[in-house]
Parts: sequence; structure tokens; C-alpha cells
Amino acid sequence: MPYPMNQQLQFRDGREMEERMRFLQAVAAVLLLVVAIPAAALCVEEATAGDEMKSLGAKTLAQPCPVWVIGSYDAAGKPNVMTASWAAICCSQPPMVTVSLRKATYTYGSIMESKAFTVNIPSEEFVKEAAYFGSVSGKDVDKFAASGLTPVKSALVNAPYVKEFPLVFECKLVKTVELGLHTMFIGEIVDVKASESVLGANGMPDVTKLKPFIFAPGNADFYRIGASIGSGKEQEKGPKK
Amino acid sequence: MPYPMNQQLQFRDGREMEERMRFLQAVAAVLLLVVAIPAAALCVEEATAGDEMKSLGAKTLAQPCPVWVIGSYDAAGKPNVMTASWAAICCSQPPMVTVSLRKATYTYGSIMESKAFTVNIPSEEFVKEAAYFGSVSGKDVDKFAASGLTPVKSALVNAPYVKEFPLVFECKLVKTVELGLHTMFIGEIVDVKASESVLGANGMPDVTKLKPFIFAPGNADFYRIGASIGSGKEQEKGPKK
Repeated sequence: MPYPMNQQLQFRDGREMEERMRFLQAVAAVLLLVVAIPAAALCVEEATAGDEMKSLGAKTLAQPCPVWVIGSYDAAGKPNVMTASWAAICCSQPPMVTVSLRKATYTYGSIMESKAFTVNIPSEEFVKEAAYFGSVSGKDVDKFAASGLTPVKSALVNAPYVKEFPLVFECKLVKTVELGLHTMFIGEIVDVKASESVLGANGMPDVTKLKPFIFAPGNADFYRIGASIGSGKEQEKGPKK
Repeated sequence: MPYPMNQQLQFRDGREMEERMRFLQAVAAVLLLVVAIPAAALCVEEATAGDEMKSLGAKTLAQPCPVWVIGSYDAAGKPNVMTASWAAICCSQPPMVTVSLRKATYTYGSIMESKAFTVNIPSEEFVKEAAYFGSVSGKDVDKFAASGLTPVKSALVNAPYVKEFPLVFECKLVKTVELGLHTMFIGEIVDVKASESVLGANGMPDVTKLKPFIFAPGNADFYRIGASIGSGKEQEKGPKK
């Protein structure tokens, strides 16, 4: 640069000063382009920094998770239940449901042996039972006896369901997938049984009557389902931005 | 029976009548045991008939279901998103998530090709976008452009995530399982990214800040998460019947 900035106070007359002023204006303009505008953009970025994504590592923090109770018979024919949240419907034709269990669970061995299980969906009133079923092993205790709930032998598959729970899926094991600590059990849904009291006008289970609840991995709490925030069908028309 | 009931009016004298009366009392006692007591038990069964289970057939009516948005690149590198509810965490070590998709979806082909996907969890404010993403095909439209949301290329896997969504899972495809109409995609979670605004005091996503929502298959509506109904940990002490 022919005109170092530290020489700007060395001008001797008006004309030279005028030239230098023009030069400084040009420098200022360049500085505006080179420094100030990107800096302003940076400020915008910083303004949204609170919304920037933070890496949490490879963790199983997806939510919301269902709270479902898996029913099975052990080798001696004793009915057992355990609570699972890593579960979902996984196929419509044929209708199938998947639940992932650790090998260490008592239910793991039972389903491997019996090739059947039930998925029992508790309503809010059974939140204590669901927590209990997920906290002790059927190897050590008779959870039905301890909870006072009633096992009913399915007429369709070799597994018991919980009489008091309002929605039940009777499943025959069709596939297991070894993934690591967990094994995925895939069951074909042979029948769904529901308490009449949880059916809506269309004959299907109504979430506001069924009152299922969810598990939040972040704090290990259970939460009830709240208000409707719209119909999936109506909203398919598209977002209105 | 030596004393048919239709002969009870044919007795001729007191003695014979007395004998027959004793016989009839015995018959009545037997009838009470054989007919009346089981009939009373039947009445008890009938009294609870309102809570008896009704068969709904083999249907995929399990709930609550999550509402997650799956991000992927198509063969041309165009970012696409679709909404899925048949999805769950399926393994803790290594951390994995599963989502079931029909072959007919555009995302199916994209994930098969790219071997990667993201799971993006929308908060309530994006319910319209989630419904829209589940209603049209990326084959026909650019859903990011149509919704005004921003695709961000993951630095870890070959898939885009939704910048505006508060919780994102970056996944590499590790397995597919053909089940029927649906195929199960199993992805290893490489990283979880969260908006700082949804993290709780423990640094984990807080459901009350994240505000995810659920899908209810019975009426195809979306519902928000409601109040806490207790800690899974505290309640593990067992049910208090």
C-alpha cells in the first residue's frame, strides 16, 4: 500500500490533505465492504446462536416413546409382563409390531421359547403398574400377583394379556433381528382386542378415551396425552407459511 | 330319573304326596346347585360385560405413535423429507433407530441409494409442515421449497436435516428388513443434534421444551403432550393397590 495509514497525520498542505481525505474515503468504503458487511452478517448469525444445534453425541434420545406392556409365558407357563418403550408398528400388510428387548430380560427368553407375545396398552390409571412392570424381573417375582392384575390366556397365540388394560394386541413371533445390546422382536398382529369403553364413534380406539401415555427419555418421566392440535388429514393441504 | 316332573300332579294320597314333596325338595336342591348358582355366576359375568374385550381384527391400531420427519437425498442430490409414525429407537448399543416405509415412497429409494437418513423431531409449531410432509411425494414436489424450511447437509452422514426442527438424529443405514408392504430401515445413530432452547437442566432434551406431538391412528389426529403423571424412576418402587 503506497499510503500507509500511520502517515495520515504527516500531510503538509490543504491539497495534499484533500487527496489524502479522498484516499481515506476510498479506504473507508473498501473497509465497509471487506469488514463491516460480513461483520453485520455475523451479528445476524450470532443473534440466532441460541437456536444453533448442539451436538449431544450418539444417544437414544428420540421421543415421544410409547409405554406398552409386553405379555408372555415363561417355560413353566407362568404369565409375565414387562414394560417397553422401544416399540412401534412396523408393517401394515401383514399387520406387524416390533419391540426391542435386551437379552438380559426374562421376557427375551420367554418369547424366544413361546414364539408369541401380547402388546398391552395401559391407560393413565395404570401408570404405577407400568412403571413397576419395567422395574423388576419376572425371573424374581410374579408381577401379576404383585400388582393384582389378571392374566388372560389368549385363545389365538401362546401368550397372556392383561385383562384390565383397555387395548391388547395378540402377536405371533415372525422374526428376530439381532442388533447389539437389543434384539428386535417382530410379531404379526393376529387380533386386536379393546375394551368397549375406549372405542370412538367409528369403532376404533379413541385416544381421548384410551388415555395412553408416553415416556420421555430426557428425564425418565411419564406424560399424558394433551389436546388435539389438528387433523392429520385436514392439514395435508399443506403448510400456510 | 324315576320320577318324571310331568307326573307331579298325579299323586293320590297324603303319604305319597309327602314322599313326592321330599323328592321334589331334593330335586329343587339339585337344580339349585346345577342351574341357579352357575346362572348367578353368569349374571356376574354379564354385569361386567361393558368392560369385556371386543375383537377389532388384525389392525395396526397401536398408539401413541411419534411424529418424526425422515430426511434423505434423492439420486440427484435433492433434499427430501417425509413424515413417519411407525418408528422407534431399537437398540442402545450401538444406538439405533428404526423406521418402516412402503416401497412406494420416494424416500424408500433415496435411503436405499444413499444409505443414510436423518430423523427430525418437529415441535408443535411445525404440525402443519409435518402433515404436509406426510401427504405429498418428493417425486412430485420440493417439500423444503414449498414449506420454506431449510435443508442442512449433515457433516456426518449423506442426508439433510431440517434446520428449524429442534431435535435431529443423523443415521447411517445398517440394515433393511423386508416385512411385507413395509420395509424396516434400521439406522445407527451417529450423532444427535439439538437446539439449545429445548435442553433441560441436565443437558438432555426436555419434553416440555421440545414439545413433540403424537399421532393417533384411530382418528388420524395429532395431539400434544400433556402434563407429567409421575417419574418412571420413583414409581419403580411398585404399584400401591
